[in-house]
Amino acid sequence: MAEQKATNITWHGGAIGRADREKLLGQKGATVWFTGLSGSGKSTIAVAAEAELLKRGRLAYVLDGDNVRHGLNKNLGFSPEDRTENIRRIGEVAKLFTESGVLVFTSFISPYRADRDSARELFEAGDFLEVYIEADVETCEGRDPKGLYKKARAGEIPEFTGISAPYEEPEKPELVVPTQSQTVEESVAQVVAFLEEKGYLDAPKG
Amino acid sequence: MAEQKATNITWHGGAIGRADREKLLGQKGATVWFTGLSGSGKSTIAVAAEAELLKRGRLAYVLDGDNVRHGLNKNLGFSPEDRTENIRRIGEVAKLFTESGVLVFTSFISPYRADRDSARELFEAGDFLEVYIEADVETCEGRDPKGLYKKARAGEIPEFTGISAPYEEPEKPELVVPTQSQTVEESVAQVVAFLEEKGYLDAPKG
Repeated sequence: MAEQKATNITWHGGAIGRADREKLLGQKGATVWFTGLSGSGKSTIAVAAEAELLKRGRLAYVLDGDNVRHGLNKNLGFSPEDRTENIRRIGEVAKLFTESGVLVFTSFISPYRADRDSARELFEAGDFLEVYIEADVETCEGRDPKGLYKKARAGEIPEFTGISAPYEEPEKPELVVPTQSQTVEESVAQVVAFLEEKGYLDAPKG
Repeated sequence: MAEQKATNITWHGGAIGRADREKLLGQKGATVWFTGLSGSGKSTIAVAAEAELLKRGRLAYVLDGDNVRHGLNKNLGFSPEDRTENIRRIGEVAKLFTESGVLVFTSFISPYRADRDSARELFEAGDFLEVYIEADVETCEGRDPKGLYKKARAGEIPEFTGISAPYEEPEKPELVVPTQSQTVEESVAQVVAFLEEKGYLDAPKG
């Protein structure tokens, strides 16, 4: 009897797929890829959008420097190769979350178009939404919530995006969030309304 | 007016934490770390347990070779360093899923005790559940669902766990699933019952 059982390693319950998880959650998984300068408002808006979605009974999760740089990517530095690998891993992890049915916000400067495009290429159409959190350097430097611009101007941070390293603006982002001309509340509402209009807050049909 | 708005990048909506996501999902996030030989039944049981949890309205997700080796870890080979890095990254990603509130099953042989212990160390107590999917080499070789043992015996796969590379059994796993003496259905029921008894299928209190 045990012999017979031992050969039985096939399950007949039917495989679960992404759509099943999405139906449970009442939403569609997607990666909402925030890009923009330091101080543009990426993390603030991502965290607040997560809160707003939760209020509506939807599951979102923010990937940012706090939970990625000190964990998964702690063995990466700031060389060009490491920066590219940093973004690649974030893209792959975001893809796994998307597959699980979660709405994942990635909150990283991700200054290079090529890196963002490489991340996009990992995804099926509609699963990757590039969102430009737009504010110019002067505005971001004026906010300087972490005092990083001050340090960069003092030469204490080499290759600081917007000061001594380039930021390549998105050419065809799915959404532009102009944080110079609207409040955080308005920016959050814009992001959530966008997701709602595009159907991400509804379960897949069928 | 725009000037004033531009400096307002603080959100007053209150931060969302793991417990909020878990309440939405009606469960507690955790990493259920399956370990065992090739052919022991890890993936079969993980996939079926996910299906069973979904039936109960709980969100689970399986990380396995299919979605990790060809994505996040595609730049890793099979050297000792790369094997260790492979397990490290899986641990870090599983931790992110756990933080998001998802019940994540990792389905990898993960033959070395030190690597599994390193993964465990990433987690808070109770967030990491090591589950030994137990079957001896003879049984697994008899099943050989992917024909890998045959290839390993023919010398076509170097350092094959159980044949030409060691498997270090867990010393204090949270659960042992004896797949030689019970059916897949019984193993799945055992895993789900364990999660239920330990409270993972309930939302956190408070």
